[in-house]
Amino acid sequence: MPAITLQAIATVRSTRSAPRDDDWDREQVYIELDPAVLPDEALLGLDTFSHVEVVFHMDRVKPDSVETGARHPRNNQAWPKVGILAQRGKNRVNQIGVTICRVLRIEGRKLLLEGLDAVDGSPVLDLKPWVREFGPRGIVTQPEWMTELMRGYWQSPGDVER
Amino acid sequence: MPAITLQAIATVRSTRSAPRDDDWDREQVYIELDPAVLPDEALLGLDTFSHVEVVFHMDRVKPDSVETGARHPRNNQAWPKVGILAQRGKNRVNQIGVTICRVLRIEGRKLLLEGLDAVDGSPVLDLKPWVREFGPRGIVTQPEWMTELMRGYWQSPGDVER
Repeated sequence: MPAITLQAIATVRSTRSAPRDDDWDREQVYIELDPAVLPDEALLGLDTFSHVEVVFHMDRVKPDSVETGARHPRNNQAWPKVGILAQRGKNRVNQIGVTICRVLRIEGRKLLLEGLDAVDGSPVLDLKPWVREFGPRGIVTQPEWMTELMRGYWQSPGDVER
Repeated sequence: MPAITLQAIATVRSTRSAPRDDDWDREQVYIELDPAVLPDEALLGLDTFSHVEVVFHMDRVKPDSVETGARHPRNNQAWPKVGILAQRGKNRVNQIGVTICRVLRIEGRKLLLEGLDAVDGSPVLDLKPWVREFGPRGIVTQPEWMTELMRGYWQSPGDVER
C-alpha cells in the first residue's frame, strides 16, 4: 500500500518534555495551531463542547522500539501477553495517540486543555469535538489487567483527589 | 513543520463503497491486517475488549473540498457557522477518522466489527482497545445542533430500533 503523507496542523505545548508512564494530570497543556496550515477560525465554537479528541504523533518513539507482535504490557509478566493492537502503548506502528481532553478555553490560535498525555513539541494531526453519539454503544467491558494498568495513569495514587 | 509519513496497517472491508452522511449501522464491516506490516498476533486479545477505536484515512476526500476555516455543518444554515475543528465532517486537513466500534470477533487477520463509518477500501492507520479510563472525564456537554446532526447518523429514523 502507498505511504500516507500528513502534515501537522498544530503543536503540543506542555510542561512535560519527556515521556513517562503515569501521572499526566499534573501537566499544564495547550495546543497551538500552525497559522501556515489553519487560521484561528478553524477553532471557532470548539469551546461550546466540554471535550475535544486530540489526534497526535508520538514522534519521540525510536523506530527500533516499535512492537509489531505481542508482548506483556509494560513488560509486566503478571499481565497476559497481548498484541500491540490490544494495547494503547506508544511503541506501535505509526505512533498515533488519541486522547479525549477537557476544553478549558480558546485564546487566539491556542486551545487550553486538561488531561493530555502528550509531551511538549508533539505534532498534532487533528482535533475533533467529542460527541456523545460517538462514544461506545452498548455495554463496555475490558480485561482486569487494563484497569490495573490505568490506576495511576492520570493521577499517581499518592495525589490528592481533585 | 516536516511532513509525517505513515503507512496503512490494514484495510476496511465494508458493504458501503461511497460516502453517505447517515445510516451507517446497516453495513457489514471488517478490517483486514496487511500481513506485510503486522502479523495476526498483533490482534491477540483485542477480543477481550468490548470495543475498539479505529483510526482510518478518509482517502476518497478530494483535496479541493477540504475546509480550513468555518462553515455551517452540512451547509445547513439553521446551524451555526463553526470551525472545521469543531465539526467531525470528512472535509478536513489530513482526513483522519476516529470511530469507536463494537468488536464482534477475530478470524485470523480479520477483525469483525459493528458500527464503523468508513467506506470500503479505506486505509487503517491504527487500532486501539477502548479503555474506560480514556473516556471523557467530568461532565460532557455539546451544542444542540450536534445532537440534531447525529440523529440519523447510525440509524435512519425510519429504521426499526435494534
